[in-house]
Amino acid sequence: METEETLLLIFVAFFTAKVAGEIMERLKLPAVTGELAAGVILGPTLLNLITSEHTFFDALAQLGATFLLFSVGMETKLSDLRRVGLIAGSVAAMGVVVPFIMGYYISVLFFTSSIEAMFVAAALVATSVGITARVLDDLGLIKSTEAKIILGAAVVDDILGMIVLTLVSGTASGNLTVIDTAIVVAEAVCFVAIVTLIGTRVVTYASGKRFVRLEKTRGSWAVHYRTRAFKRDSWLDKLVQKQAPFVVILIVIFGLSAMASFVGLAAIIGAFFAGLIFSDTKETYELEQKFEPLSVFLVPFFFVVMGAKVDLTDFPSVASFAIIITVVAILSKLVGCSIGAAMKGEKTALIVGAGMVPRGEIGIVVAMVGLNMGQIGLPTTP
Amino acid sequence: METEETLLLIFVAFFTAKVAGEIMERLKLPAVTGELAAGVILGPTLLNLITSEHTFFDALAQLGATFLLFSVGMETKLSDLRRVGLIAGSVAAMGVVVPFIMGYYISVLFFTSSIEAMFVAAALVATSVGITARVLDDLGLIKSTEAKIILGAAVVDDILGMIVLTLVSGTASGNLTVIDTAIVVAEAVCFVAIVTLIGTRVVTYASGKRFVRLEKTRGSWAVHYRTRAFKRDSWLDKLVQKQAPFVVILIVIFGLSAMASFVGLAAIIGAFFAGLIFSDTKETYELEQKFEPLSVFLVPFFFVVMGAKVDLTDFPSVASFAIIITVVAILSKLVGCSIGAAMKGEKTALIVGAGMVPRGEIGIVVAMVGLNMGQIGLPTTP
Repeated sequence: METEETLLLIFVAFFTAKVAGEIMERLKLPAVTGELAAGVILGPTLLNLITSEHTFFDALAQLGATFLLFSVGMETKLSDLRRVGLIAGSVAAMGVVVPFIMGYYISVLFFTSSIEAMFVAAALVATSVGITARVLDDLGLIKSTEAKIILGAAVVDDILGMIVLTLVSGTASGNLTVIDTAIVVAEAVCFVAIVTLIGTRVVTYASGKRFVRLEKTRGSWAVHYRTRAFKRDSWLDKLVQKQAPFVVILIVIFGLSAMASFVGLAAIIGAFFAGLIFSDTKETYELEQKFEPLSVFLVPFFFVVMGAKVDLTDFPSVASFAIIITVVAILSKLVGCSIGAAMKGEKTALIVGAGMVPRGEIGIVVAMVGLNMGQIGLPTTP
Repeated sequence: METEETLLLIFVAFFTAKVAGEIMERLKLPAVTGELAAGVILGPTLLNLITSEHTFFDALAQLGATFLLFSVGMETKLSDLRRVGLIAGSVAAMGVVVPFIMGYYISVLFFTSSIEAMFVAAALVATSVGITARVLDDLGLIKSTEAKIILGAAVVDDILGMIVLTLVSGTASGNLTVIDTAIVVAEAVCFVAIVTLIGTRVVTYASGKRFVRLEKTRGSWAVHYRTRAFKRDSWLDKLVQKQAPFVVILIVIFGLSAMASFVGLAAIIGAFFAGLIFSDTKETYELEQKFEPLSVFLVPFFFVVMGAKVDLTDFPSVASFAIIITVVAILSKLVGCSIGAAMKGEKTALIVGAGMVPRGEIGIVVAMVGLNMGQIGLPTTP
């Protein structure tokens, strides 16, 4: 009765994750930390219930990561992106470049392979402003200039972070010659460009809307487009099965994931860009309502399984690197983002820099990509 | 990059299932037939993409079956059950007893083990009136006496079918002595009784309602209860995590599944009874809306994987048994249900009998339970 054992382990993992998440949320910490802790408890450090033998857990974790990245992509509206100001853009850019470079040059001292150092650096890139937004909201500062810059920068940050991961995973997969690597990176860039440019148009058209080119506004840094509804039966309406648009979007998510891994990228990059191209259509198809149950059920498995990959008995050997990289993660983001916001004065720059420091689930996704590609191991002492 | 291959296979299975389902629905056939056909195509008969080596597919199939049975249970309102008339009850009972006995005595001729014959017989039990309901609706007869009897019988049929499966899987797991078997069957009966009686009350209470005993109405065959809302904060409202009631219900589903397999029953029996005890609360927590995305995504994997377990190159060796058991399935249900409705006159009895003939997904669930318990093989020629 092996399949029965499967359901029992799924129950234990889900139950522990949700209880730990509940405890953490009551302590005003993100639920994710509880789910990771649940994984550490169920993993080899303590109970040894979730091991690498349970391959179905890896499949569930991969599904969880897929829906997580789709949601992150869906939150990143491309139409919002066109409205982001110059300062938010420069905060995001500096907040990606400085942590990546600092993270890389510190990590190469500890790792034998430069690919490993690149993955560590990529994990430092993506900001998670959820906590900052909650704190600013609690303080009644959510409408301040600093909050606007931080929230604008967070949108750009997500996309830049995913492009960094695209480049890193592309480089890691073409690990023979410079030409191989260049080809994979070129494929990666084409993938992102094609998916974003063509994907959004196809989706907009399929949902019964059309892009309309607006007059170029003075002082704007880009040509503006706006979607406008036009009367036409969408081909989606011709499908007879129930929940047809939802089914088609699921197919697109897994199709783009498969395509991404086909061109040598991490599959979850496809899921992120699927989210991105559907972000402007999410109200039409009530996507948040449809995908929330899938996320609530499957995403915890991602964090539990990642937690279970950590064996805390190994911790002493990596403790020094862990402390150093934590300091680098905080300082590099603070410095980078403050430089990006420097033109707004010292005080604003520092507030923005501090607000951009928190990291979240994307860092763990980067770790999973590196693990799946077999490119991450334990750091050596220098 | 094994996990990447996982996502690719998930994409292929999901895409093929949904396309085949769409084709079948356009041909006015149930989508399920398309999903099973997709499994046959992807399985060892043709493409050999889904094999027993991909254990994660079995986990996904198990999850699909869990959510499928939860939905079936949720459709079976216990409060409706109290309103079902005597005739619908006798139609359901005779429609379970006759096919089981006929199916069993035909199958023992073909199988060496009586347990196998019991599983085949159990697979003949559950009616699926979806098609009948659609046909009656198209003919404008959905409010006729026959339709009322059929739809009422279908509610009882689901529960009786699940009790038959409980008894069969209990007997199959206690396969040493008569006493072992008796203990498992007793545990099974207690499981069903405790879950149904205590479960419904706990759930009703937790959702802020209370059972109120009504006056015994004349001519009614049971004491009536009704739930009545009372002002009280549910402990569910005290949980801080998002979608807390949905999370708790997921935990109950997997908890009862684990409990069911702990007492020697098939895990999906737990999922069915979880659905049953939440059926009266489904509006309060918008359960259908929450569980539909999970079903739309995961249930197809159940049918695809079950289809992929069929190797049609083996078909010639089972063809004679397949034809015989199909005839038995049709005749036994027609005869049994007609006898059950005999007191309503010959014509009504025959219409009801014919309307109860269609079978559906539960038969395949019974097959999965037998396979998982290692109790089903190929029939031998007598």
